[in-house]
Amino acid sequence: MAAPSPKTVSGPQPAPGPRSLTLLGATGSVGSSTVDLIKRGGARYRVEAVTAHRNAAELARLARELNVGFAAIADPAAYRELKDALAGSGIEVASGEASLIEAAERPAEWVMAAISGSIGLKPTLAALKRGATVALANKECLVCAGGLFMRTAAAAGATVLPVDSEHNAVFQALSAGRREDVRRVILTASGGPFRTWSIEAMRAATPEQALRHPNWSMGPKISIDSATLMNKGLELIEAHHLFALRSDELDVLVHPQSVVHGLVEFRDGSVVAQLGAPDMRIPIAHCLGWPARIDGPAPRLDLAQIAALNFEAPDPERFPALPLARRVLETGGAAPTVFNAANEIAVGCFVERRLDFAGITTLVAATLDAAERRSVLAEPQNVEEALAVDHMARSLAQDVLLEIAAKAS
Amino acid sequence: MAAPSPKTVSGPQPAPGPRSLTLLGATGSVGSSTVDLIKRGGARYRVEAVTAHRNAAELARLARELNVGFAAIADPAAYRELKDALAGSGIEVASGEASLIEAAERPAEWVMAAISGSIGLKPTLAALKRGATVALANKECLVCAGGLFMRTAAAAGATVLPVDSEHNAVFQALSAGRREDVRRVILTASGGPFRTWSIEAMRAATPEQALRHPNWSMGPKISIDSATLMNKGLELIEAHHLFALRSDELDVLVHPQSVVHGLVEFRDGSVVAQLGAPDMRIPIAHCLGWPARIDGPAPRLDLAQIAALNFEAPDPERFPALPLARRVLETGGAAPTVFNAANEIAVGCFVERRLDFAGITTLVAATLDAAERRSVLAEPQNVEEALAVDHMARSLAQDVLLEIAAKAS
Repeated sequence: MAAPSPKTVSGPQPAPGPRSLTLLGATGSVGSSTVDLIKRGGARYRVEAVTAHRNAAELARLARELNVGFAAIADPAAYRELKDALAGSGIEVASGEASLIEAAERPAEWVMAAISGSIGLKPTLAALKRGATVALANKECLVCAGGLFMRTAAAAGATVLPVDSEHNAVFQALSAGRREDVRRVILTASGGPFRTWSIEAMRAATPEQALRHPNWSMGPKISIDSATLMNKGLELIEAHHLFALRSDELDVLVHPQSVVHGLVEFRDGSVVAQLGAPDMRIPIAHCLGWPARIDGPAPRLDLAQIAALNFEAPDPERFPALPLARRVLETGGAAPTVFNAANEIAVGCFVERRLDFAGITTLVAATLDAAERRSVLAEPQNVEEALAVDHMARSLAQDVLLEIAAKAS
Repeated sequence: MAAPSPKTVSGPQPAPGPRSLTLLGATGSVGSSTVDLIKRGGARYRVEAVTAHRNAAELARLARELNVGFAAIADPAAYRELKDALAGSGIEVASGEASLIEAAERPAEWVMAAISGSIGLKPTLAALKRGATVALANKECLVCAGGLFMRTAAAAGATVLPVDSEHNAVFQALSAGRREDVRRVILTASGGPFRTWSIEAMRAATPEQALRHPNWSMGPKISIDSATLMNKGLELIEAHHLFALRSDELDVLVHPQSVVHGLVEFRDGSVVAQLGAPDMRIPIAHCLGWPARIDGPAPRLDLAQIAALNFEAPDPERFPALPLARRVLETGGAAPTVFNAANEIAVGCFVERRLDFAGITTLVAATLDAAERRSVLAEPQNVEEALAVDHMARSLAQDVLLEIAAKAS
């Protein structure tokens, strides 16, 4: 007895036929979840190319299983193993950084850009340059050279689909209105393991304590970024580029259950949000199906069972990474690149117990100050410039660390 | 330093020039909020016609203020007062039920259908028949003749925008995906004043206790429907028609803060929700601006201040109106019309202390049984048939009430 539906808002329709895909970073966590979804989709997909960092055995297994045309491995030392493992398969094999770019340039309509770190910059840019639909899981593209990447995407008519749960949530919520009707975008943060700790207790926090993330299981770098809220600072920078939003149009809300991933407030007072279980297969499935949706294997959200969703404003005293990220956003240019590089050095020092927990943000801020004094914050115009700033910032952070240590002793 | 935005999903654009509007039921609560928004929009709107039930003075004031072309009053006894109040204004004046239909037939692109009760059926249908964009605030259209109304809208290419906060939320959330990718739609319910009461305490509840709604300030009928959760049962029926969803695709979630108004679960596991302060100007502004959005005067949602959102599954034992509404949905035909009519009689009896609180749902269920036994549940094919069923059901409910009273004594 279902009545015929009248004119309603409906998303755009996908192109007919199987979707051609390339997976940059196929063996990592995001890559593996993507492969899982592709296998469930069967004939709906055709995989053009896959790449990995150095795990030749796993890459060869995936390449055969997905029946790809091309497999590229970043580490030249792993070339022979990959070549042997794919002998007789008819799959083309290559290695080195250039082979990752070649994989990105192959004519797949949809590209998962999940190579982590700065090595992901050039292949991702190559996919955007040819106008592909790029599911973006690499943080560095937007943090280190966001202006460049988004300008390139716009010029080529490429679509950037954010994979990160918060940005993916915002992307979904934005479909409820026009860009010019958005009043504010809110990213949620779990608040990390120190959400309820005093500032004194946080100063004495150990790496072991910082590694206990309440909701997501993640690597050590991301876990510590989640404890400092540096991750949310980096995400503010990403959101700024992805959605062309100013710092004052962006907000962060602490939400310990990590169920509401992002919210968009429209000018009429409506707030549209995306919610879901904390399972990366949900945003990945969204990107893979977009503009349609595909069946997802993630557990269904049961709000009655969760019973309560809590929200609080982030405390800028205990989490100075957030105001620092806003300063970086407002400074612009290469400041985000320096922010990201200095934070990587700082997290490494914290894990090695050369810095205390509060020292992470202190080192990042001092490195930004030093970079500002040296006037090296011009916006990178290409990947080489972004990489040069990243390199310079790492060495600057090391110098600043020595200065801090000298003062302390 | 905002980067240019690449291809992103954006809603449809509104037509240029001022929007022509007609307000059916301009002096009620929804009508007044609409007028408030129209005045804020200034030259963006041109008001074609306004109608009211019997408040001629207020209708005349509005008609002059909005500089309308036509003012219609339902009650013929109020015609003279309206005519005199608008003398010399150049505004056409008419009265009686036919004048409400005439107002709806005038060529306004957008119509607010906010006449409450069954007298709203014919004017609303008239607006849909000519393909207008209709902001639907009248519950009876969908509850008593939903199939007829949605078929008419589809045939005429009319757009139905739901004004009710829950359905408006679902409408907004649905824009994040295609209709065929929806797994489930969830309407939230405050749970009313008896949410935490025992079943025994609820049996002894007085009308005064039932009238205390926690979040919204509403009339007595709606407040009691919110205490029984009959309102949510009626909304399930409306959602079924509005969005062409089966009973098993619809769910109700108790959410005492009334901040999340509705949620849509997609097949990939994403749940998209609309949130907002409990202020009817938010959904009305959404309808008035649609497909763009307009500035809204409602308070901004501050989740950090609200701090907690709670959710629980509705208890079918204490709130039997919900399973009864599902039975009605599955029966189809004229069952929703009987459900609605019997509930109106039952609420009246409860207010007059002729029924206890539990007796409301008992009377509705018994009336449905009686109607089923008499085989009078064929789907109404036009408004006259819907009105005839409504009339029959009211008299049937009165008979059933007498039987119940006779058995009890």
